[in-house]
Amino acid sequence: MRLTRALENLIEQLQKLPTIGPKTAQRLALHLLKVPEAQAQALAEAIIEARTSVRPCSQCGYLTEADPCVIYRDSTRDKSLLCIAEEASDVMAIERSGYRGQYYVINKAFSLMGGNRLEDIDLAPLLDKLSGGEIRELILALNPDIDGEVLARYIAGLAAAYPVRITRLAHGLPVGGDIEYTDEITLRKAIEGRKEI
Amino acid sequence: MRLTRALENLIEQLQKLPTIGPKTAQRLALHLLKVPEAQAQALAEAIIEARTSVRPCSQCGYLTEADPCVIYRDSTRDKSLLCIAEEASDVMAIERSGYRGQYYVINKAFSLMGGNRLEDIDLAPLLDKLSGGEIRELILALNPDIDGEVLARYIAGLAAAYPVRITRLAHGLPVGGDIEYTDEITLRKAIEGRKEI
Repeated sequence: MRLTRALENLIEQLQKLPTIGPKTAQRLALHLLKVPEAQAQALAEAIIEARTSVRPCSQCGYLTEADPCVIYRDSTRDKSLLCIAEEASDVMAIERSGYRGQYYVINKAFSLMGGNRLEDIDLAPLLDKLSGGEIRELILALNPDIDGEVLARYIAGLAAAYPVRITRLAHGLPVGGDIEYTDEITLRKAIEGRKEI
Repeated sequence: MRLTRALENLIEQLQKLPTIGPKTAQRLALHLLKVPEAQAQALAEAIIEARTSVRPCSQCGYLTEADPCVIYRDSTRDKSLLCIAEEASDVMAIERSGYRGQYYVINKAFSLMGGNRLEDIDLAPLLDKLSGGEIRELILALNPDIDGEVLARYIAGLAAAYPVRITRLAHGLPVGGDIEYTDEITLRKAIEGRKEI
């Protein structure tokens, strides 16, 4: 195909984004050539600005421009609850659930198959916080997969030296889910965790 | 959800792109914060550069940086064949098919339901080309829908005043398609257009 170099380069850059294949990249690129110039410019500037100004919060690791972040600074939140999350996107999901405690975001993907080592995860700031005495409960909100399980056990092991309650998110049926189509492990966890009504 | 302004703005800009919903926009934005800074920068610059340097070819309307475009300048292509396409993305698809003639790209979406008028489409340069006498065949490669049909008939009407053969792309079964799942209009066209083997 004969494409002009600048267009080819734009398609190539767009294709590096997750979930964007060659056809979508081409469609997005042609769209960006068609919209008002100000809109294309706004996207380019938003990328640069986000990269320049957004950093992990020095206190909790969540993404922020002002340091510490709004969540950490919010005095109405429960400082005795600390939720461990792997990434900022997990915090965004947990925030939507109405959780009102604090966070500790690891900001480092842990993958056994990827050859990562647990020792490479810097948990010193977390242990510092725990030794402060203000935290009563540590909620391990890690993904319900093998990597999350391994990481949860590792953190729980380190945190056991402090006088905190260590909890994890419940397993069970997703709300609106269908028992017929639920995998057997989830179903077993849902039965084990059954509650009086 | 508590998001920092620059991140929220990036998500909002990404969401303006076609096929990008709020969840994908969030994923793309967080990805752009995670990749090496140079990669995010390269995408932003590619957008700006494409917008600055890519323009429709003055001769055929295809997208190009150098004017006239590589397709128009290619002396090995058949100058007697002129293919009318609605958009640059249609040209890209036709190029992949191995077509070796010239193009005339309308670069203006025509939609009956959108209230567009046929008279608003500037076809003067096309009629100029036709009066030049070099073109022997006009291939109407417009979309096989109502708008494409209307546009094709309109252009064919204007072109009838010139000594050119006017053709259109064949209707029929897509290669690899399945007769069982082909709609009845396509199937009727495929039967009407049946060929000796």
